[in-house]
Amino acid sequence: MAIDLQHDFVSAQGYFAKLGYDPDILRAVIPNVNRLSKAMRRAGGLIVHTRQGYRADKADMTPYEVWRRERNGLAGTQVMLRGQPGFEIDSGVNVEPTDVLIDKTANGSFTHTDLEHVLGAHGITHLILAGVTTEVCVHTTLREACDRNYQCLTVSDACASGDADMHKAAIRMVTVENGIFGVVATTDAVVAGFDNLAKNCDPCQDRTEKT
Amino acid sequence: MAIDLQHDFVSAQGYFAKLGYDPDILRAVIPNVNRLSKAMRRAGGLIVHTRQGYRADKADMTPYEVWRRERNGLAGTQVMLRGQPGFEIDSGVNVEPTDVLIDKTANGSFTHTDLEHVLGAHGITHLILAGVTTEVCVHTTLREACDRNYQCLTVSDACASGDADMHKAAIRMVTVENGIFGVVATTDAVVAGFDNLAKNCDPCQDRTEKT
Amino acid sequence: MAIDLQHDFVSAQGYFAKLGYDPDILRAVIPNVNRLSKAMRRAGGLIVHTRQGYRADKADMTPYEVWRRERNGLAGTQVMLRGQPGFEIDSGVNVEPTDVLIDKTANGSFTHTDLEHVLGAHGITHLILAGVTTEVCVHTTLREACDRNYQCLTVSDACASGDADMHKAAIRMVTVENGIFGVVATTDAVVAGFDNLAKNCDPCQDRTEKT
Amino acid sequence: MAIDLQHDFVSAQGYFAKLGYDPDILRAVIPNVNRLSKAMRRAGGLIVHTRQGYRADKADMTPYEVWRRERNGLAGTQVMLRGQPGFEIDSGVNVEPTDVLIDKTANGSFTHTDLEHVLGAHGITHLILAGVTTEVCVHTTLREACDRNYQCLTVSDACASGDADMHKAAIRMVTVENGIFGVVATTDAVVAGFDNLAKNCDPCQDRTEKT
Repeated sequence: MAIDLQHDFVSAQGYFAKLGYDPDILRAVIPNVNRLSKAMRRAGGLIVHTRQGYRADKADMTPYEVWRRERNGLAGTQVMLRGQPGFEIDSGVNVEPTDVLIDKTANGSFTHTDLEHVLGAHGITHLILAGVTTEVCVHTTLREACDRNYQCLTVSDACASGDADMHKAAIRMVTVENGIFGVVATTDAVVAGFDNLAKNCDPCQDRTEKT
Repeated sequence: MAIDLQHDFVSAQGYFAKLGYDPDILRAVIPNVNRLSKAMRRAGGLIVHTRQGYRADKADMTPYEVWRRERNGLAGTQVMLRGQPGFEIDSGVNVEPTDVLIDKTANGSFTHTDLEHVLGAHGITHLILAGVTTEVCVHTTLREACDRNYQCLTVSDACASGDADMHKAAIRMVTVENGIFGVVATTDAVVAGFDNLAKNCDPCQDRTEKT
Repeated sequence: MAIDLQHDFVSAQGYFAKLGYDPDILRAVIPNVNRLSKAMRRAGGLIVHTRQGYRADKADMTPYEVWRRERNGLAGTQVMLRGQPGFEIDSGVNVEPTDVLIDKTANGSFTHTDLEHVLGAHGITHLILAGVTTEVCVHTTLREACDRNYQCLTVSDACASGDADMHKAAIRMVTVENGIFGVVATTDAVVAGFDNLAKNCDPCQDRTEKT
Repeated sequence: MAIDLQHDFVSAQGYFAKLGYDPDILRAVIPNVNRLSKAMRRAGGLIVHTRQGYRADKADMTPYEVWRRERNGLAGTQVMLRGQPGFEIDSGVNVEPTDVLIDKTANGSFTHTDLEHVLGAHGITHLILAGVTTEVCVHTTLREACDRNYQCLTVSDACASGDADMHKAAIRMVTVENGIFGVVATTDAVVAGFDNLAKNCDPCQDRTEKT
């Protein structure tokens, strides 16, 4: 799963930049995410891209969220809204027609969405997580997935945060209690694994293991 | 809530007509649904319209559903698919810009959607149910709502089914065990109640009671 | 799944009898439920029994439910409460140590419970439904299961309701739209199927098809 | 909410001690948790205690979890099992008859439980989080709560982890993006706030703000 690689998080005009974070640090993982997606598609895996933002009609925005948005100086802006430019996935991210898009309001990708339905329809039991930000949307999605008994791998150098310390802490947090939230690996290791899988399973049409 | 008043259910070219049901019986409730919506909007209520159909990318369609679709002779058709004409709400239904649309794959409107999120954001605790079909999507939504502690009213002559016996049974089913699924009323009674409410609450901007 | 075969529903002193229903009609399906469970256990299936009732501390009872309980003349009683005699499964129902008990407050067995978790842990994808009452708890559970993509079979003569018309209507409702809620079969047919399965799969330890 | 203050986490014979963590660091927050509960009860708040552990029948344990348990050297033990001594809340924690117990298998307190049902029945919209461990069960519960639009306060010195760095990182994580997961305060500050509330609202029977 490639979490929230949208202009609002990775571009200079987005929500994140307006909060004072440096979006370039987030953009930097896009090449690794593309390498992962390419390797997984070749091995028959399903690629899911999530996008976070309120409904265009704002029907899912609580009075508290309206207040918090104002407090953050975002009241008059179009950030984090479906249908707006900031909501779109960055053009540097490779999105293929066979990939699945999940739109969400929450930080977690499972809450109030049809993600579990889609994963179930494909018989998917294992997830690989990448995207932004490591400590918020990636970690909430990871925790939801573990509690629903998906087996999860988080790719350390394909996730990023505007806050380097939080990224580092969030990656280590995956592994406490001997792997309470699954395992961590690098992009190189995961791509090598999928390449190996693709070589040894021909034709790779079986979808029992995928994101 | 106005459930699934889409071409697929109420039009001559839709999914329902292809299954052999008479869509005219379903179309017949649209005037009553419009009367309810008008009365509720005036009283400050929120109108929710649901639409049922698979994702345009069919990522939520299981192998079983593919098989069932074929068995029903619908394999080559575009029925029950988002983005297709059959998925749109019938033009006779009054939909205002302030209304909320919920798209769903399931029969129930709560499962795999953000309906509960939207209702919660508006502080909604009471639901009025109308639409099609009484015994399938209306009743599943009603049951989900009761189990989530919404207080529910089903409008007998604003719901319909292609099967008159099933409609009648489903309406009576609401009231077993002294109202296990809430209460039943006619469109006239509900509209009179909202008109009364609108007269006595001015300006009707408070949204503590709505659909 | 054997739904809510508790004293509150099937005994002369229970909740249902207090509402004026005849519990004997409900008790009458117990032999068929036992035949089903026996056949399924032999074939390696998992048996789930559900029990409906409020928490012993009533923390899950809303002000509306307190009011409705009073209105039904049940304010001073102990019906529908966990830990009370009425909550227990009738002693005529065969419950084995390997069976699973799911306690619930809602009519549906999935809402606010760990049923989906338990089914997922066993890899269960197909459900067989029996118990009481056909039009309330059995049907809500059936609808929840279908919307979560379980494939379901409802056993017509192993389900019952205090209202014969509602039972009949609920059974027919399963099959509208060419099987919107799966299929219906008799106890004889299901037992014959499992006996056949047991004969042809030795040792029957694989649990890919169960409950 | 007081998360998972069970023997398995805070006692010398528990699950956590067996993993090599020092349970004394976790025990140390119990006095602060008791101070919070006392202040909240006086102000009319509801206290929720959670307990984590598999069902006594282990029906919610997946094959993967059986394997992970073995790998952790816990195969023959009774840790993390309902009904076993390790599952009980530490006797140092003040639990009153009016408090609510939520038993869970997951790290999050909302997934596969009736917590949301109970909170809804009491009209609760604000949560105060304390307990163990900060970065696993407290944080997962906090994230679930935020995604369900509860407004949350995490009490920094009433939460603990076996890993001091992870505790510190998890507390700071609450506040990224100008408070993505709500706010953080000390026990002193929260108790002072509740004492103030109790003084100015007499009799404190209104439950619109509570845990």
